[in-house]
Amino acid sequence: MSTSPADPARYHSFLRDLLGVMAYGELSAFERLSSDARYSPSLHDRAVLGRIAVIEFQHYELVSAKLDAMGLDPEAAMLPFQPSVDHFHERTRPADWYESLMKAYVIDTVSADFYRAISRYVDAGTRDLVEQIQADEEATAVLRERLKSALADDPRLASRLALWARRLLGEALTQAQRVSFEHAFIGGLAGADEDGSTDDRSRELVRGLMAELAANHSRRMTALGLAG
Amino acid sequence: MSTSPADPARYHSFLRDLLGVMAYGELSAFERLSSDARYSPSLHDRAVLGRIAVIEFQHYELVSAKLDAMGLDPEAAMLPFQPSVDHFHERTRPADWYESLMKAYVIDTVSADFYRAISRYVDAGTRDLVEQIQADEEATAVLRERLKSALADDPRLASRLALWARRLLGEALTQAQRVSFEHAFIGGLAGADEDGSTDDRSRELVRGLMAELAANHSRRMTALGLAG
Repeated sequence: MSTSPADPARYHSFLRDLLGVMAYGELSAFERLSSDARYSPSLHDRAVLGRIAVIEFQHYELVSAKLDAMGLDPEAAMLPFQPSVDHFHERTRPADWYESLMKAYVIDTVSADFYRAISRYVDAGTRDLVEQIQADEEATAVLRERLKSALADDPRLASRLALWARRLLGEALTQAQRVSFEHAFIGGLAGADEDGSTDDRSRELVRGLMAELAANHSRRMTALGLAG
Repeated sequence: MSTSPADPARYHSFLRDLLGVMAYGELSAFERLSSDARYSPSLHDRAVLGRIAVIEFQHYELVSAKLDAMGLDPEAAMLPFQPSVDHFHERTRPADWYESLMKAYVIDTVSADFYRAISRYVDAGTRDLVEQIQADEEATAVLRERLKSALADDPRLASRLALWARRLLGEALTQAQRVSFEHAFIGGLAGADEDGSTDDRSRELVRGLMAELAANHSRRMTALGLAG
């Protein structure tokens, strides 16, 4: 495996990219969620989304501190991923609070799955960090329960939110694939060529990962009573 | 002093209003600041504003927990103050990141002064809470230093930000006065009539408080090299 510390320079740049995209993902999720919070139907709900946003910010700070500890500039590590992540958010602007809630839930769960998958390939220290971040079940449970009660209150929401969730997943997977290939960090996992080009093996790995993310998402939607 | 626990019902409703306006002020500052953060000139600066926003949210949670502990519904306590606070934000939309930074600084310092003044009139438990919130010097220092360095980098900013800060202060004091009289909570301090109407004494008290807030603000602007 070319990502083992046996190839330290390559592993180092893989880690920088992984932590960079995680950090920027968390920072921008924080900003989008907290802006969306203002449109909540009640002050109580505003505080619920605000609390979730704050958890994202704390995750950003953990990842950023890890980059610092590795002697890397968090800003430089995040910058290459800014266009893709911003593009994702531009293409998925929630029309109302319920769509914000679903967006938060999809981002939260799909990125936790993604991090969990990636953490198989990283050193123990990094794995601890990744687990610390994806294990925040509090936020996920709050979002799930709030979605459930919204769907119970207004059954017409179901078809709209089912479509919306499918679009969110599609955009998320498209961006994740683009990031993976452009920055060759899945290549770093799969043992791509030194010039960073991806080979059949890394394409296979990415396809497998995307299928896994989609299947998990589908299970969660079914659990909410939505067509996954 | 009619706000002493000697008149418990009245003191209770005064506290509910005080904590309600504080809680909503912190919650909405959190949302506005974190939305504004996206327009920061660098990712580092986005994280700086994000950090400040998170501190506001933590203050909201402290105040909200206090309301809960008093057996009061935080949402019901905040609602009467929503129109005034929202109106303040609508009238003071920052045109760019520097104006956001100044707005954060003015809100942070003027509300700390306000809470400090009010805390003379409250019981020890509430005073502890108020002190815990206004004593967050970390956020204030970060904002002050960031403003200083922005002003050093671009001297033309000075006149624009000086005007902007004066407008922010004007709006803040106008809203504070309106809230004080409408909700008669300064009346609660000053010993207004039972029907909630404010008398000369409470008007005097409000005038004194506003003058004190303006004078402190002016000193801080001078320290930044701006015409206060």
